[in-house]
Order: sequence, then structure tokens, then C-alpha cells
Amino acid sequence: MNESDLLSLLRTLPLHPGGRGLRDDAAIVNGLVLTTDTLVEGVHFLPTDPPGDVAWKLLAVNLSDLAAKGATPEGVLLNYPLSDPDWDRAFFDGLDIALREHACPVIGGDTVTLPRGALRILTLTALGRDAAAPSRTGAQAGDLLWVTGPIGDAGAGLAIARGETGPPELLRAYRRSTPRLVEGRALGGHVHAMSDVSDGLLLDAARMADASGLAVTLDLAAVPLSPAYIAHRSDARAARLFASTAGDDYQLLFAAPPGYVPPVPAARIGDFAPGRGLALHDAGEPLPLPGMLGYEHSPLAPVRPAP
Amino acid sequence: MNESDLLSLLRTLPLHPGGRGLRDDAAIVNGLVLTTDTLVEGVHFLPTDPPGDVAWKLLAVNLSDLAAKGATPEGVLLNYPLSDPDWDRAFFDGLDIALREHACPVIGGDTVTLPRGALRILTLTALGRDAAAPSRTGAQAGDLLWVTGPIGDAGAGLAIARGETGPPELLRAYRRSTPRLVEGRALGGHVHAMSDVSDGLLLDAARMADASGLAVTLDLAAVPLSPAYIAHRSDARAARLFASTAGDDYQLLFAAPPGYVPPVPAARIGDFAPGRGLALHDAGEPLPLPGMLGYEHSPLAPVRPAP
Repeated sequence: MNESDLLSLLRTLPLHPGGRGLRDDAAIVNGLVLTTDTLVEGVHFLPTDPPGDVAWKLLAVNLSDLAAKGATPEGVLLNYPLSDPDWDRAFFDGLDIALREHACPVIGGDTVTLPRGALRILTLTALGRDAAAPSRTGAQAGDLLWVTGPIGDAGAGLAIARGETGPPELLRAYRRSTPRLVEGRALGGHVHAMSDVSDGLLLDAARMADASGLAVTLDLAAVPLSPAYIAHRSDARAARLFASTAGDDYQLLFAAPPGYVPPVPAARIGDFAPGRGLALHDAGEPLPLPGMLGYEHSPLAPVRPAP
Repeated sequence: MNESDLLSLLRTLPLHPGGRGLRDDAAIVNGLVLTTDTLVEGVHFLPTDPPGDVAWKLLAVNLSDLAAKGATPEGVLLNYPLSDPDWDRAFFDGLDIALREHACPVIGGDTVTLPRGALRILTLTALGRDAAAPSRTGAQAGDLLWVTGPIGDAGAGLAIARGETGPPELLRAYRRSTPRLVEGRALGGHVHAMSDVSDGLLLDAARMADASGLAVTLDLAAVPLSPAYIAHRSDARAARLFASTAGDDYQLLFAAPPGYVPPVPAARIGDFAPGRGLALHDAGEPLPLPGMLGYEHSPLAPVRPAP
């Protein structure tokens, strides 16, 4: 089933107004921000990833969605399939570390027994509070597009996790990504639209433009890269394109009017205008879009319209 | 990993007070009741079950947990693995019917792509409102134990789904169980403890007693059976034991003081006393407990103490 078939199906279901038409990564009910993400072994994490890092990622991807709403974590529900006791133990040890690091308690959940040999499918649902809750859909023509930090480190780290030689800080960026909760709270009440960069900068920028009914132009030369990334992959156009289409960075992407000075470090990478679609420039020169703007493995979270 | 190992692990995690020490099937945060259940193909449903019935069950098991808190459904989050388009379409058609039947909208969720041949693992998280939210732990010595309706129909229906010959109403009781939302709301503010009967009457009664720090004695002769069940399986002791240890009935089990007159149909099946554990009688005659009190496939939902 392709994304538009699935969208048609889901849009026939009765929908809750707090779900924002399923166009955002989080819903708002009774003042609580709700988000949920599922990770599938072999799709969202490698079977060889250490279990504690999988636990970290499961929490981080959800807290990153809370960060994009400017929320403070209230707690999580965990749906966990028990399988190999050593793996399970290492997972829970890692989860304990991740929960404490982010001051996020467990509210509840469900554990099931996984039949032998079945793939692990892990779900976590996060609740947040005190959120200004900017949506993905609120960008306005004339707004500038910003991102809170370097892009591409996790993508380079994934290649290292798969066997490429590279520095440990990039591997760590993939395995222990940081949800930008502090930045999200500082920005939440002031920006027109915000989302995290989970599936690729170009894809997430295109989604924000589409959800806002606008065109966005992104300047590849302005995309921030870390010193470690540049040392490892260079800052040539191909390396910038790789970074801008890789996933798992969990920086925040936001739209704000000209003149807005972000209270946290951020790089201005583009602007919104009337129209539709994403256009790419490199220091003023128009570039054709790459074939893949990012990872579409999770087309609907809840439901993201196709860019 | 056995249940007590898992309990030890989970109890070392930071816990949210709304999770009630993970001793209940639902948590309370900001006035919302939260519950989540995961169904695994081959464990909680048969690969041959019609997809629409799996959707119904996924919703019903969660709404049954809301019913046990006396809550009204606010909405659900769905974590769904896309696999075979025909199966997916039939699932969503069934989900649409089930959601409308229970006036329950979709708030959000996440869809992932399931690798070819992987087992389906489905998660749904339900939110409820306006709940008196009696816990599983509140039974008092001297309380009577009640159940809202016939037990065993779904267990007999599961045997029929597996190939046994039997009447369609029992198969329907397994495939289209009814969460007792009306009964839950009527009882919620008045009873000392309540849970649903999802994993077997004896097991769920033993869990309520254990969570409340009490002993419970259950009279097998008083367990209500439906006319269809009696016609199919008889009401002999073995048939009563089968019914009392089968799962998926989703009646409500509650503890209330002597003299309480339930405002909805209910059968009085036992009583609580100081002490520990479950004892079984059959019209006054003590019976040894069967080896299995119910299905422990879902030992922690969130976390149920071992009986």
C-alpha cells in the first residue's frame, strides 16, 4: 500500500480534533502533548546495535517529538516484546540510563512474549506538558527557515555502525542522539512552525512547507556541519547532500519571521514563499533535488502528507 | 526472563506516580486514564482470524481497561505495521467499524513497514476521561466479589475458531467481545476495586486479591454461564473450570461491601477476607486450584504482581 492509499484509508476513520488532522507528529489532549513511535528491528535499528542504544533511541525519537512542541516530558508508556533475556536486560539497563538522563518516568505499558525468531517491534508513547505546541503547519510566506545544529552526524554514524571506518563521535551521534528539549522550550512560544529533523533535512523541510501550503527554498551551503563531519566526509556538495538527506539527527527545524533572533544557537538555512514544493540552492546556484529527500520508512507519524 | 525477574527490572526504572506502582491496568495523568495493549500474531490472535476481527479485538481489549476504570473513551493512538495490502485494508475497515461502534476517535499513531514474513505486532493506546478510576488494589476484607456477566463464551469461541464445531454466538463472543463501558461507568464511583476479566476469571480474581493484600474465596457454582455455553459445553464442574480459566471475556470484576446493590446485572461469585491467595469452592465444597488460573501471556500490563 502506498502512502496516498494509506492516507485515504486513515482519513476515513473518525478523528479526534486534538490530532490536528493527523498532520503533525504530536497530538494535544487535555493540555498533554502525546506522541508515539515504533521501531522495527532491521528497519529503524540494526540487529547488531547494542540493546542499550536501541532503548536510548526509542526514548530519544519520542522525546524529540515532544521537543518540537516545546514540551517538557511528563512520562512514557512502553510496549515491549520479551525475547532473549540478555538482550532484554541490556535494553532495560539502557532504558534506565536514558530515562534518568531526561528526567522522564515510566507511566505504564505492556509487555508481551515474542515468539522465537520473531523480529523485535518496540513502541513507546511519550506524554509532555507545558507546551506552546507550535504545529508543523504554521509557517507563513516570508518566514525564514532555521535549524538548531549540525546535520549529518547521525547519518555518517550509521555508515560507521554498518562497518565504515570513522570517528567515535559520529557513531555516538547515531547511537545516542540528543532530543533538543531545552531548545524546543526556548523556541516553542515564539516560532510559527516547528518539527524535528528525524527523516532527513530536505524531507522534513518539504513536509513543513507542504503542511503550511507554501514553497520553501533551502540553501545547501548554509546547512550547518560539525567539525567532525567535515573532517570525516568534507563539506563538498556531495557531502552536504548526504548530510541533508540522512536521518536520525533530531535537530529542530523551525519557521520564524524575519527579524526574529533565536534564543538558542541556530543556523538560517532557507525561506518560505507563496507556492508549493521544495527548491534547493547552493550558494545562490539552483540545484536539482536528489532522488531521495530522506527516509520515508515511517510515512505516517501520525500521518504526514507526502511532500 | 520470568515474571519476577522482569518485575525486579521494571521496578528499578524511574516511575510516574500516575502509574500506580505499575500495579493496575491503567494510569491516571492530568485527569486522563491511559492504557495500552499489544497484540502479537500467533500469541494473542490467530493468523487465520479475519483482520477486521483483529482490529475489533485490539480496540476492545483497550476499551475494556478503560471500562474497568469507569472511563469514557476519549480517543486512541495506533501503532500499525503495514504488510499485506489486502490484510491492511480489511484491518482498517474493521477498525473503522469498531471505532464508530464505541464512539472513539483516532488521536494519532505511527505506521511502520513490516519486513516480509515478519509477525504482526499491533499496539493501541487508549485515553479515557471522566473516570472514578477505582484501582485493582482497593478491595477490603469482608467485600463481596462480583462479575458483570457470563464467563467462558470467548474461551469456547476460541476453540471453535481453532476448528471445533460450535454455535456462531460463541465464536462471535471470541471475535467481537464487548467492552463493558456502560457497566464500568455505572459502577466506577461506588466499588472498592475493579478490573476486567481479560486473562481468566480465577487469575484476575487472584490478582485483585494479591494487589489488595487479601485472600479471596470464589464459588465455582456461582460463576455465571450463558445458555449458549451450557448448551455447548454443559455446566458440569469441568465446564465451569474451563470457563473460569479461559481468557478474552472482558466482563468486569469488582469488589464491593456487603449490602451494595449493583445498578447493572451482576453475579456475586466470592468474598474477600484477611490473608493471602485464592481458594476455590464448588457449592460449599473446597476444590484444589487448577494448574493454570488463566493466560499469563501478558504478565505485565503495565505490571501485574504474580498471584
